[in-house]
Parts: sequence; structure tokens; C-alpha cells
Amino acid sequence: MESMTEERQKATFDVRELTYFLDGGEKYTKIREKFMMELERDPTFRMYDMYDVTKDQIRERTMEKFRTIVHYVSAEPVPIFTMRMQTISLIDPGFWTRFGVHYGLFFGALRGSATSAQFSHWVSKGALALNGMVGCFAMTELGHGSNVAGLETTATFDEASDQFIIHTPTITATKWWIGGAAHTATHTVVFAQLIVRGKRYGTKSFVVQLRDTHTYKLMPGINIGDIGKKMGRDGIDNGWIQFTNVRIPRTNMLMKHTKVSRAGEVKEPPMAQLTYGALIQGRVAMVVDSGNIAKKAVTIAGRYAAVRRQFSSNPHDVQETKLIDYAIHQYRLMPLLAQAYAFHFTGVETNKLYDDLMDKLESTQPDDETMGEVIDTLKETHATSAGLKAFCTWSTLNAIEACRQTLGGHGYSAYTGLATTYNDFAVHCTWEGDNTILTLQSGRYLVSCYREALAGKSQPEGVSYLNHLDSLLNLGCGVKTNEEILNFDVIQEAWGVVTANVVKKAGDDFEVSLKAGMSPEAAYEECSQARLAAAKIHSYGYIFRRFAQAVKSAPEKLQAVLTKLCLLYGLYSIEQNAGFFLQYRYFTPSQMDYVRGQVNVFCREVRQEYIPLIDAFNYSDYMINSPLGVYDGNIYEKYFDQVKRQNPVGGEHPYLPLIQSLLRRNIEDDEPLEDDDEDDE
Amino acid sequence: MESMTEERQKATFDVRELTYFLDGGEKYTKIREKFMMELERDPTFRMYDMYDVTKDQIRERTMEKFRTIVHYVSAEPVPIFTMRMQTISLIDPGFWTRFGVHYGLFFGALRGSATSAQFSHWVSKGALALNGMVGCFAMTELGHGSNVAGLETTATFDEASDQFIIHTPTITATKWWIGGAAHTATHTVVFAQLIVRGKRYGTKSFVVQLRDTHTYKLMPGINIGDIGKKMGRDGIDNGWIQFTNVRIPRTNMLMKHTKVSRAGEVKEPPMAQLTYGALIQGRVAMVVDSGNIAKKAVTIAGRYAAVRRQFSSNPHDVQETKLIDYAIHQYRLMPLLAQAYAFHFTGVETNKLYDDLMDKLESTQPDDETMGEVIDTLKETHATSAGLKAFCTWSTLNAIEACRQTLGGHGYSAYTGLATTYNDFAVHCTWEGDNTILTLQSGRYLVSCYREALAGKSQPEGVSYLNHLDSLLNLGCGVKTNEEILNFDVIQEAWGVVTANVVKKAGDDFEVSLKAGMSPEAAYEECSQARLAAAKIHSYGYIFRRFAQAVKSAPEKLQAVLTKLCLLYGLYSIEQNAGFFLQYRYFTPSQMDYVRGQVNVFCREVRQEYIPLIDAFNYSDYMINSPLGVYDGNIYEKYFDQVKRQNPVGGEHPYLPLIQSLLRRNIEDDEPLEDDDEDDE
Repeated sequence: MESMTEERQKATFDVRELTYFLDGGEKYTKIREKFMMELERDPTFRMYDMYDVTKDQIRERTMEKFRTIVHYVSAEPVPIFTMRMQTISLIDPGFWTRFGVHYGLFFGALRGSATSAQFSHWVSKGALALNGMVGCFAMTELGHGSNVAGLETTATFDEASDQFIIHTPTITATKWWIGGAAHTATHTVVFAQLIVRGKRYGTKSFVVQLRDTHTYKLMPGINIGDIGKKMGRDGIDNGWIQFTNVRIPRTNMLMKHTKVSRAGEVKEPPMAQLTYGALIQGRVAMVVDSGNIAKKAVTIAGRYAAVRRQFSSNPHDVQETKLIDYAIHQYRLMPLLAQAYAFHFTGVETNKLYDDLMDKLESTQPDDETMGEVIDTLKETHATSAGLKAFCTWSTLNAIEACRQTLGGHGYSAYTGLATTYNDFAVHCTWEGDNTILTLQSGRYLVSCYREALAGKSQPEGVSYLNHLDSLLNLGCGVKTNEEILNFDVIQEAWGVVTANVVKKAGDDFEVSLKAGMSPEAAYEECSQARLAAAKIHSYGYIFRRFAQAVKSAPEKLQAVLTKLCLLYGLYSIEQNAGFFLQYRYFTPSQMDYVRGQVNVFCREVRQEYIPLIDAFNYSDYMINSPLGVYDGNIYEKYFDQVKRQNPVGGEHPYLPLIQSLLRRNIEDDEPLEDDDEDDE
Repeated sequence: MESMTEERQKATFDVRELTYFLDGGEKYTKIREKFMMELERDPTFRMYDMYDVTKDQIRERTMEKFRTIVHYVSAEPVPIFTMRMQTISLIDPGFWTRFGVHYGLFFGALRGSATSAQFSHWVSKGALALNGMVGCFAMTELGHGSNVAGLETTATFDEASDQFIIHTPTITATKWWIGGAAHTATHTVVFAQLIVRGKRYGTKSFVVQLRDTHTYKLMPGINIGDIGKKMGRDGIDNGWIQFTNVRIPRTNMLMKHTKVSRAGEVKEPPMAQLTYGALIQGRVAMVVDSGNIAKKAVTIAGRYAAVRRQFSSNPHDVQETKLIDYAIHQYRLMPLLAQAYAFHFTGVETNKLYDDLMDKLESTQPDDETMGEVIDTLKETHATSAGLKAFCTWSTLNAIEACRQTLGGHGYSAYTGLATTYNDFAVHCTWEGDNTILTLQSGRYLVSCYREALAGKSQPEGVSYLNHLDSLLNLGCGVKTNEEILNFDVIQEAWGVVTANVVKKAGDDFEVSLKAGMSPEAAYEECSQARLAAAKIHSYGYIFRRFAQAVKSAPEKLQAVLTKLCLLYGLYSIEQNAGFFLQYRYFTPSQMDYVRGQVNVFCREVRQEYIPLIDAFNYSDYMINSPLGVYDGNIYEKYFDQVKRQNPVGGEHPYLPLIQSLLRRNIEDDEPLEDDDEDDE
């Protein structure tokens, strides 16, 4: 505990001021603190025993929490409620998801795809108040995930009855992974192939009732089961659903975009892109969540490292050395701390981009002059959020595991929290767009921007380096002296040069394939490795830019410490991608050695104030939910208390007869009968 | 299923022949198949429900298995029994560990540290037959892990009674993580500070009885609790132990090395290094386990990729495209397949090195002329096994997660097996030496070899590149034409050059610090990042060499396919470390582009026969324990069956009243009292 006091005295800045800056102002810090207190005092949100509950217990408890939180849906304005949910996602991602299935997915689908009359109808049935019905979202199938167009479930229009027949034709068409289906949902939005008069119109969405809203018995033709145990987030009751000739009224098809009339006429929408918006929102939320979870992980690992002592780096010391005073431990942790800040600021910026885009979309009519520009921004935001979602969730997953490993053996205890955090977080790399597929999409966008830029079309802010292709590609080594490297503009230029080159490589590969007579699809497929690399490098540069921008906008007194963090992030990312910087000769080998050396220097610098930098995240002990990450540094006592509370000493031996019979067994049973030498004739 | 037949027809080699080669001969394949069948038919080893059992259930079941397996301890020769345990570790790592705590750790400590009289005594008490007693191994403490010399528990000699007093002086001295302590062990080997007549002699080991061997009640002065839930391997009952002035006879101290006489004279051993042997064995076992688990993970991911279809890379195709036919999916999986082979062969070779070393150690007397050489080999094997343990366990952990992610959403289901595999495997990165610390140790060894080599001393095989420092460091770009790169010798040379340079960097950094007046300890600390890099790069080169060697020794008919795999491993590893190859100019940027391109080419090549290459691992479906990895490719039906078997449809709703009261709640409760406009005066 002395150790912590000592560490806190090292701060050269005001921790509270940094918290306000991170939260976007004192007002928001206060709101977050209010949420944290409310959660901590709510018995249904008790967390100390969460690492020991079974799947069935956690599911029931997750359900219990609905009553409290649903109250705020109507009581709080959307941005405030969103902050509340962000806070909850940090401590109970299972609840966040289960609640999100109804409000984000089911209700979101109604808002996005229902006509206003349909929307009012379902709201009147209780879809907003969660009163009378609960929804789920039946998209994925056992055999079909990312390729929504390839779903097999059918919705066939029966003109005679003015109904659709929803049907699961094969085992692979079974709806799978459907959150809330196993025990919660009374209704679902189901994605199915629209078939009218024998013609297929692609995947559309339909509301189908699954259960009686009073008895919870399954409706006729509905067959539902539990998906069972998962890697994490067991609080959600994911299920599978099979439909066997289930009839629904025609008006249960969500008809904001595609419409089917009483007479069976199908009218398709003019601009399909506009439906991208919903996808972007989910991805932006995961960028934000990555930052938040990364902060939690470094808080636990960081506080532990300030208290835990091991070996002695100086033979004259009486005490062992703090983990954090080892160069290698600094190298393990400080870049992750810098990355957590980088992701935080990227999350904030991406959120703003998304809000701006939504404002523009709402205020622009299809035939407005500016519509082209809005569509460009939409495409850019779509591609950027896809790339960032993949990049930030992958990096954060790795960061959680890296933090867990810095706890040594204790990282393997459930009570230290990071194992569960890993298991809960891992799904982010897959849902709402598989990371590899999203990264490829982002790479595809970069290739097309590159080709447009070559053709002279100016590119938007996120890829603005493509507007200076000539100068960047021919720049060569960008710095003369080593010292010049320690500069935001130089690092930004370095990423610009390398990204331009990597994108060019992908674009050129694509061009070669096209010229060889391939279709664009085949040419994209051919350059997939190059696309993947391009998108990753692009994300690195993008995130550095966001971080640097945020630092420049910070209050004067915070500039010094944030500049160090940002330089560390920049240098470390360069070191991790040294191959590209040497390949495209922005840095010489000796400059690269300098960069490596400076990573160590900045790790040491940041280490000086790292506990205050962690404190600024302002997570209460309740939110951290790990005895190794407690604010006061009293880690061993709290850890021991937690272990004893959850595993009381004494009591009966759980399988005494079993072990007694092993230890007192008759070992002669294992010995052979002695050979009988006597003749038995 | 057709898909699998199709894939199997592509083999250009005999799968069975490759299996024999991997197993070391037909004889060993037959033995492994016998073990797999015996396990599958043993009801205590049933595995289909393992993903759903609770911690308490799995612990009890793990205990049940002792009876069967203990039978083979005496019935089978050690090498055969070791193979049996390797097979078990693949399907039930929890049991493997719990059994290993007694035989590997407790009994191993007796064998390694007891005098022969002491050893006989404990065998007569039932330590070998596991009859009458079960042991555990109390080394780690709550506040002390890797630094065994810093343990706090004391063993104070009381001359009057001829006893030691074992005592836990502080909370951080509480023995922690002790496998088998919570419910199983009757005895323990405890590591404690030997104190005789007020003088400390460092950490020694002592046998202490924990429980009555009949009633299982704790002995006086012993306080034990359960550590509780862990990230994985819940079949082991890890516990904590506190000793409060526990008296044991003096002869319970294990005195093979250090001796304490009746009169309180302490006699310390001449050669401490010789105790390294035990450490090496555990690390070699983990290199082998890495290979085995890596094979299991690629089997699951690989078979799924041959059956799962998604999107269509060709618009004219009626069927969607198999995952494995996407370039990016090949790039995700094929290098992991190659790596699994690389680790397999490295495991085999490391095992041999270890056996040779043990033979030499046993046949050499301390004053033999060859003892110096044996000690050199011991040091080399110690450092190599430390570096390889860290490298292979880290890489395999990443490979498991990468494989899990290739399963898309299904990778998040517990039943597909890889989530549990990850959670069980993760502890390998920490126990028996934390990976970071081991890597640094290996780097320290490399620095000292480098300095010896500079001084003209010839270096052993594992670091033989240091014997040609001059030529390697001045070689410059090693190849003229791109095609030359596709050659084992060239790749080996490339690794040699790069490793020599990276080791030189660490050595030079060390030298600079020494010259600046630092102590050797401080100088080593100063160059830790360089040491870490040196050890990692060294391991890459080492493993490639082992792989290439194995390929050269393979039967003629297997050469072609194994050569492809080995080249893929070599090229992919170079690509992953491009920075160093460009830094030290072994490859030019355009050659590096060629390497990247060839990684794709070889991914495509290996893809052709990858299912037969997986089949050659010869794991039965029971061993794989994942419906997505079944041999016949009937993945969806088996997955669905598994989900339904573990989560039967129908039955009562688990919390109907809870959900009914939510959906039928009185929402007016949320509405405020209307303002009363009337004057209430």
C-alpha cells in the first residue's frame, strides 16, 4: 500500500483533470460515477461471486437485472442511457449483450426496417417498454454466418391467405446462435429468403411470434433448443430455432425498404447503401468497448506490477524489486497502456464521425446536390469502422491475454478477472462481422480509393494520404537525424509513406490480375493477403493520427504526459512493423535501431507516472472486480479474502469414500497369480 | 462428407506411412492406437459431457480416474507409460496434471532430492504404488513464484528435539496454487528456508504430513483451503497451505544434496548445476505437448474448413466456396499446420537430446575428464529447453486461438472444443518457469556464448552459428536470384546471419553497460529487450533446423510433401520477422516481396494435400472431442446432436415466474404522480 502512495506522488499532472479530459468534461465524469455507485449498490448486480456461478445461475441472474435497467430506457435521454450501458458493459458484458439483443437488434431492426405504421404497431404491443413481449434476432444459421445473402430459411408468400410461410428446409438452415431464443424471447425478427410467385427476391426480415406471451409455450411449428455452454457470456441464452411451415400475416414482413403488396407485387428500394448505418453503429460501439476493456486490463496488470516484488535487480537491496522496475516488464506493459489511451481517443473520434454522418444522412434528401458527398462519407465511415472494429478488438484481445500473463500464476485464477475478461471479449472478434472479413473489406475500400486517387479524384480525410501519392511514394528516407523522429508530424508522415506503399502494393497486385483477364472479384481474391496487410497498416496510421490529434487538443497541463504516451505508441507500433518501414526505406537500419532504443527510453519515462495514468481511467474497485487491481494496492489480503469467501475452509470432504478406497485399495489385485510349477497331470 | 473424400483423394503420399514416420515407427503407432481405444472405452474417461460439468463434478471425476491409471504405473515400462500419459494429456490435461502432481512433482522430488534410505522409506509408505499416501508439492507462495530463493516459509532446526519447525510467518508466505492440496494430498514436499542455529542456508525441501491418511482430517498446525475456480484445468484441486509451528523429524528433510546432522552441522553439495535435470524434463514435456495440442487444433480448424462453405468466389458456381479455397483462409491455416509439424519434430529431437544428456550424466563421474563437456551440454540443453518451452507454448497458445477464430461463431461454442483447449493450455505459458523469464534466461545464455565465441571458445551444436561469426556478420545479402531462396540451406543460413546479428546486438549492449561500470547483473538487466529478441530469433532458427533435419531423414516417398511444408514454415517465419532480415540486409526489399509472394504460393501448394497431412496425425474422433473436427466431415449433424444431447429440448422453463413478472409488470409504477394544480392551502 505504501508502494501505491509512492507511485501516486510521482504524478506531474492532475489526475482528476485528465479524467475530465478523457470523459469529455467534469459533467460526464460525474454521471459515470453516479452509474458506478448505482450498480455497486444494486444487489442484482453484485459481482464478487460472478466467477463461481454456474451457467444456469448466471442466466437467471442476468434476467433479474432487466427490471432495474428497463426502467431507465424511458426515464433517461438516449445519450445518457448509452453511457449507462457502456458502464454496464464493462462489468457485466453478458447482461449488456442480452439486453442489447432486444433493444439493439430486435428493436433496432424494427426501427430500421419497419414502416412507421408497423413500428407503431409493435411499440403498442410493448416492444419499447418491454412489456408484453421480448424480441430476439434470428439471422445466423447453422451453416451460414457472414454471407447473409446465402441464408436458406424461406418466407414464401401465399397469396390465397395473404400470409407468408416461414420454413426451415434443411438442418443447415436451422437458426443458430440466436441470443435470447433459448428461454427469453416471445418474438423474433427472422431473416429469410423472400419468395413470391416462385421468384426469389433475396433476404428480407419478418416478425414471427415464438412463444405464447403468457404461458411461454412454443407456438405451433416452432421448435427451439438451447445452444448450451459457450466460451464466455453465459448470461445470454443463445438458442437454435427451426420453423416448420409457420404462417404469419403478410404485414409481419418489415416493409420500410422492400414491399410486398396484397396482390403479390414486390417493390424494391432505390438506395441499398443507406442501410449500412446500422452496421456502422455496432462496430463503433466495439471500438469504444475495446478502449474501455483495454483500460480495465491495464489497470489490473499495472497495479499488480507496482506491488508485486520479485528477485532483486540490485544485490544490495534488502527488498525484492517491484515488477514494474524491470525493463522487460515496462516493455510488456507501457505500450499496452499507451494503446489503451490510443483506443480510447479513437473511440471518441469514431463516435463523433458516426454521429455527424447520421446527422447528415437525416438532413439530406436523395436528390440533394450534396448527396454524393454524403454517400462518400458513408462509404468511408463504413470501411473505416470495419477496419477499426477488427483492429481494435484483435489488439485488445491480445492485450488482455498479455496483461493476464504479467500476473504470473495468479493470472490463471478466475478471481483475478482477466481470464473471464478474455473469454467474454473474444466474441468481439467474430460477431457483427468476422474480423478477417472486415479487414478484407477495409482493404478492398483502400484499393478502390487508391485507384480513384490515381485517376485524380480527391479522397476523404481518413485516406487523405492518397491525395499525395507522388510525393509520399518518392520521399525515400524522411529524416536526417535520429532526434527528428521524436515528433508527431514525422511519425505521421512515416505511417503515410508506409501506408501509401502498402496500399499501392495491393492496388498494383489487383491491377495485374485484372490485366491478366480476371474478373474484379477474382482479382480482389487474388490480392487478399496484400489487402489484409494494407488495412492493418492503414489502421495503425489512422489510430496514431487520432491519438496525436487528441493530444494537441488537450489542456496545456496535460500535454507533456500525453505527448510521451503518444510518442511511445507511435514508436512501438513502428517497431512492431519494422519490416515495412525498412522495406519502403522510410527509416534506415540504424534509425530503426534508434527507434527500438527509444521505445525502451519512453517505456521508462511513462513508467514514472503510470499509476496516475491508470488512476485517471477512474474505474472503481467494484468495476475492476479483481483483488489484484484494487486502488489501495492491498492486493494479497483482498485476494486471500476473496478466495476464502468463495471457498470457505472446513466442511465435509466432497468425495472422501472415493479417495479412501483408492488409498486403501487391495494392491494384490494388480499382482498376477504365481506360476504353479507343480505338474498338474 | 463428399468433400472429405474429395480432399483425401488428393494425397500424393501414403498417409499411414507418414503416421509411422511421425510416431517413430509402426510399433509406436499401434501402441498409441491401443491407448486411444482403451481410453475411449473407459467410462470414467467419457468426454462428450466434459464441456458441461461443474468444477466440483470434474474434480470428483478426475479423482475416479486414478484407479485405472495407477494400475499401469507398475504394469508398464516407463517409456510406454510416458506415451500413455502423453495420450491422456491430449484429451484430459486436468487429469494429466493432477496425476503428474503426485508422480512428477512429489515423487520426482523424492527421487531427485532424497537419499536412497529416505527414498526407500517413502516408497514403503506407498509413495510409488499410491497406496496409503498421496503427495503434493508446496513450492509457490502467495507472494513468491519464480524466485524460489526468495520463499518465506521457514524450516528451523530445533536441536533439542531433533526436529524441524515448519512455519508460515506472513500472509504472503502462504503456500499457494498447490495442486492436490485442497482435497487430495496426505503429504507434501514443502520448500522452506533452512535455518540452523540462527543461520540461513537457502531453500531446501522437507516432507510434511498434511492429513490423517485414514480420516483425511488435517494434522495439527496445518491450515488448508481451496484456491477455487481457475481459467482452466478445474480437475485439479489447487489449494493454499499455512503451517503454524509444525514439527517434523529431522530426517524428513530431503538430504541427497544438503545434509543436516543430528548435531546441527550443515553440509552443502559440491555441484548445484546437476539439479537442473529435473527442470529440463518438465520443459521438454511442454515442447512435446505444444506439438501435440497444435496438431489437435489444426485438425479441428482444418476439417471444418474443408466442409464449411461461405460466399462464392466465382459467380458462376452454384455452391458456395469452401473456406479452405480462399487464399486468406489458406494463409491463416497452412502456416499453422506447418508449425505443428515443426513443433512435432522439435519435440522428438529435444526429447532425444534430453535422454542423451541423462545417459551422459549418469555415466560420468564428477572427476572424469569429460565432465566439463557434459556440463557444457547440460547448460546448452537447459538454456535451449527454456527458450523452446517459452517459444513453443506461446506460439501454440496463439495458434489455438487463431484456429478457434477460423471456426467463426461456432468457435465460441464450448462444444467445438478450442475454447477449453485454450483455457487449459494457457497455464503452460506460466508454470515450470514463466515464459518471459525463461526467454530472458535463454537470451542470457546466448550473450555468454557470444562472448565466449569472441574469445575463441568453440560453441556447441545448438549455437554453432556463433563459431562462424566473422563470415556470418559480413556476409551481406546471401542470394542473387529469388529462386535460390527456396532452399533449406539458404533459409538456414539466413536464420544464422540474422540470429548472429541479433545475438551480437545483445552482447554488444551488454558490453557497453559493463564498460560504463555496471555490474554484470545490471548490464544484463539493461539489455533485456535485446536478450528477449535474441532468444526468440534463436528459437525460430533452431526449430527450422530441426524440421529440415527431420525432413532429410524421412522416407523417400514422404520427402516431397514434407519439403513443401518445411519451406512454408521457413518462409512464413521469415515474413513474420521481415524487419530483422531487412535490418541485417540478408534479403533485399524486392527479395522480401518475393518471400511474401512465395508464402502464398506454398500455402496454395500445401492446401492441396492438407487433409491427408492432418489425417496423418492419427487422432481418433474421441481424442479430438469436437464435432467440427470429425474424420468423416459430417460436422453439422454431429454438432447438432451434441448440442441436443447436452441441452435436451422441452422440459420446464428454468425461471418462468421471473420472466412473466417482467413482461406483465405494472408499468404505471414507472410513471410519476400527476402534478396537482389545485391550491392546497
